[in-house]
Amino acid sequence: MASDRIQTPKGTRDFYPADMRVQNHLFDGWRAVCRGFGYEEYEGPTFEHLELYVGKSGEEIVGQLYHFKDKGDRDLALRPELTPTLARMVNQKGPSLRKPLKWFSIPRLFRYERAQRGRLREFFQLNMDVVGCDTVAAEADLISAAVEMLRRFGLTADDFAVRVSSRRLLSEFLGRLGIAEAAQAGVYAALDKRAKVGEEEFRRLLAEQNVTGDSAAQLESFFLCRSLSELSALFTAPSAGEAAALGELRDLFGLLDGLGYAGFVRVDTSVVRGLAYYTGIVFELFDKGLNLRALAGGGRYDSLLSNLGGEPVSAVGFGMGDVVLADLLGEKGLLPQGRPGVDYYLVDLAASGGLPRPELLSLAQRLRERGLAVSYSLKAGKFKKQLEEANEGGARRVLFFGSDRAPAGQYEVKDLVTGDQTILGEDEL
Amino acid sequence: MASDRIQTPKGTRDFYPADMRVQNHLFDGWRAVCRGFGYEEYEGPTFEHLELYVGKSGEEIVGQLYHFKDKGDRDLALRPELTPTLARMVNQKGPSLRKPLKWFSIPRLFRYERAQRGRLREFFQLNMDVVGCDTVAAEADLISAAVEMLRRFGLTADDFAVRVSSRRLLSEFLGRLGIAEAAQAGVYAALDKRAKVGEEEFRRLLAEQNVTGDSAAQLESFFLCRSLSELSALFTAPSAGEAAALGELRDLFGLLDGLGYAGFVRVDTSVVRGLAYYTGIVFELFDKGLNLRALAGGGRYDSLLSNLGGEPVSAVGFGMGDVVLADLLGEKGLLPQGRPGVDYYLVDLAASGGLPRPELLSLAQRLRERGLAVSYSLKAGKFKKQLEEANEGGARRVLFFGSDRAPAGQYEVKDLVTGDQTILGEDEL
Repeated sequence: MASDRIQTPKGTRDFYPADMRVQNHLFDGWRAVCRGFGYEEYEGPTFEHLELYVGKSGEEIVGQLYHFKDKGDRDLALRPELTPTLARMVNQKGPSLRKPLKWFSIPRLFRYERAQRGRLREFFQLNMDVVGCDTVAAEADLISAAVEMLRRFGLTADDFAVRVSSRRLLSEFLGRLGIAEAAQAGVYAALDKRAKVGEEEFRRLLAEQNVTGDSAAQLESFFLCRSLSELSALFTAPSAGEAAALGELRDLFGLLDGLGYAGFVRVDTSVVRGLAYYTGIVFELFDKGLNLRALAGGGRYDSLLSNLGGEPVSAVGFGMGDVVLADLLGEKGLLPQGRPGVDYYLVDLAASGGLPRPELLSLAQRLRERGLAVSYSLKAGKFKKQLEEANEGGARRVLFFGSDRAPAGQYEVKDLVTGDQTILGEDEL
Repeated sequence: MASDRIQTPKGTRDFYPADMRVQNHLFDGWRAVCRGFGYEEYEGPTFEHLELYVGKSGEEIVGQLYHFKDKGDRDLALRPELTPTLARMVNQKGPSLRKPLKWFSIPRLFRYERAQRGRLREFFQLNMDVVGCDTVAAEADLISAAVEMLRRFGLTADDFAVRVSSRRLLSEFLGRLGIAEAAQAGVYAALDKRAKVGEEEFRRLLAEQNVTGDSAAQLESFFLCRSLSELSALFTAPSAGEAAALGELRDLFGLLDGLGYAGFVRVDTSVVRGLAYYTGIVFELFDKGLNLRALAGGGRYDSLLSNLGGEPVSAVGFGMGDVVLADLLGEKGLLPQGRPGVDYYLVDLAASGGLPRPELLSLAQRLRERGLAVSYSLKAGKFKKQLEEANEGGARRVLFFGSDRAPAGQYEVKDLVTGDQTILGEDEL
């Protein structure tokens, strides 16, 4: 019979209460750090007009859209990322929104791609963005928030690191190789696939973009840089643009080193990020284990808002998905265990399988009004059954309602953790 | 230029930070009461296979689906309600889930209908359900949770009430009128439209279902009942089924009266609820003002799980949407005002418009590690600009970094609420 039943759609998840506790652990941790850094929460619609994504995001994402026409023949798409929505919202309010904005959100996102470990068609993603700050103070703030989040989840510098590069510097370097700006998007796409496809296929993709021979070799030397000094050495006699891009990286590392993050953050020019709209610093937080999975990624996108019809406003942001993070925390034993049950489970000693007694409901209500979490058996069955329910629900204490060991107005209470039994007045509960 | 810009899709909303604070006020209030009643949170996918809804929900809802084919040619629909997902999830786990379940969720739902006040195409809705309890203990638990929520939001018995009826009793009554069970769905649909379409159109809809003359008049007398005694008087010589349905209502009111809810809850047989799957008690919480808007509604649906291929398991639940509730709380002045800003805003007296100083970032980090919310100007501009940012962000206190009025290791702090200025050591902050 089970096979007749309707299943969960492919690539999506059901969150049973145990799964939802994990999600809430992530959401609560994310929110606490965002608020601690002074970021304000926002949200947008689950779907947007298709044109918001087409041509504005990375090509990779547009091919993965869930899109459809509504009954008014509008082309809509389930959002694959929140950044275009953020840009639209900021553009709609224009100058009435005082910059810089420090905003965060925890949207649900949708990508139609092959379902595999760490990649689902529907997932949650923290987004943190700064709009209207054109110095790396914004990048430093965002990177330190991302690092603090992972640390508060229990991860250490042994578990993860931040790789930082610069699209601006890469663009300057491609310019040095004679690749015009208009032709650079194709090269970014090839670069972004580099780790996945292997060296040979990467060379082939570069050749498709007319990058061969000495240019390809020079590009390779760029991608091998793992420190500011290696990068500086590559740019002999830097142009003004190159010097500015190098200066941004240097300033950012200065701020992050001052925060004691030297052990977490490193230059890594192999970081490109798939999205087409990045214009400056880009970064990735990744799992240092065998898989090198990306936990978060982002960068500066100074042109997106004006490309979408707004005033030119600089912006930086990152996304941190729930799937890889929960996997990693689970592997490290850092997910919450057990059920956060009620404070008191009321067990009615005189119950006989009918309805719960009004006096018991009334006590539950009084305790709840005092902020306590209180439950009781809806089935009001045998004592043993009620106790089983209390235990399975993870209750912290059981209150024996109608116990003749307690005087009138008092209650016999058993602590299910310590096993202690006491008699308490209602005010002491 | 503004008209060129891509807009928010029709019937959906953007939540800017001020709007999101309202949403979080609702979500936090809902969650607190659900947890206080011992309910566990769950979630499902945003879209489901279309067949989960077709023929299982009310006809009204199916006509309002956002549906589409995915690239694997599957028919999917954005969820218009969560109950079918809950039924599917419970069926998938079968007996391994120990009943009764007390679950809640705050899904985002989608209905393609004419956008109007209080009706949007995308909205949030609290869902609370009990699965596996066949007595009205479940209804009493859910109704009291719904009442407690609204009370904690600040609403009183002057603002809202709960109307209770019974689909089972209505079905029995239709049986008395000679309307077979198979023909009753059409009558429910007519009944559900009764308040909206006016008396004449309602009579016409009934006539379409072959309910005319004396039957229509008797149905009218059923719908005028506003107390248990009026209802009892209508059912002279009740059948076993009628007596059982009346007994359920009586038991439910007994429990609710015991909780002191007599001022909130009343019999109202005009409550039908649009969804086809209800089988027992149905109820609505509504705004007692001029509009009589429904704030929440639900009922018992004992057949839905088995209709979807599961074991026969009884279930009751309700939904409470965000739109009407927020409107009502806004009208009553019960929504949170102001911005919950950071604990400390660090103002650098030596800032000169460059990057923030590493020493200031480092202090921010130490304070955040102690659980304080701390912000500072990313632009590190003039003193006055920094103060403006602190004020506009709703900061509670300003810390003057580098003030020569404070000895080394101490800080001059101004409370922006009281205006008090003090010198504090770092540990005292």
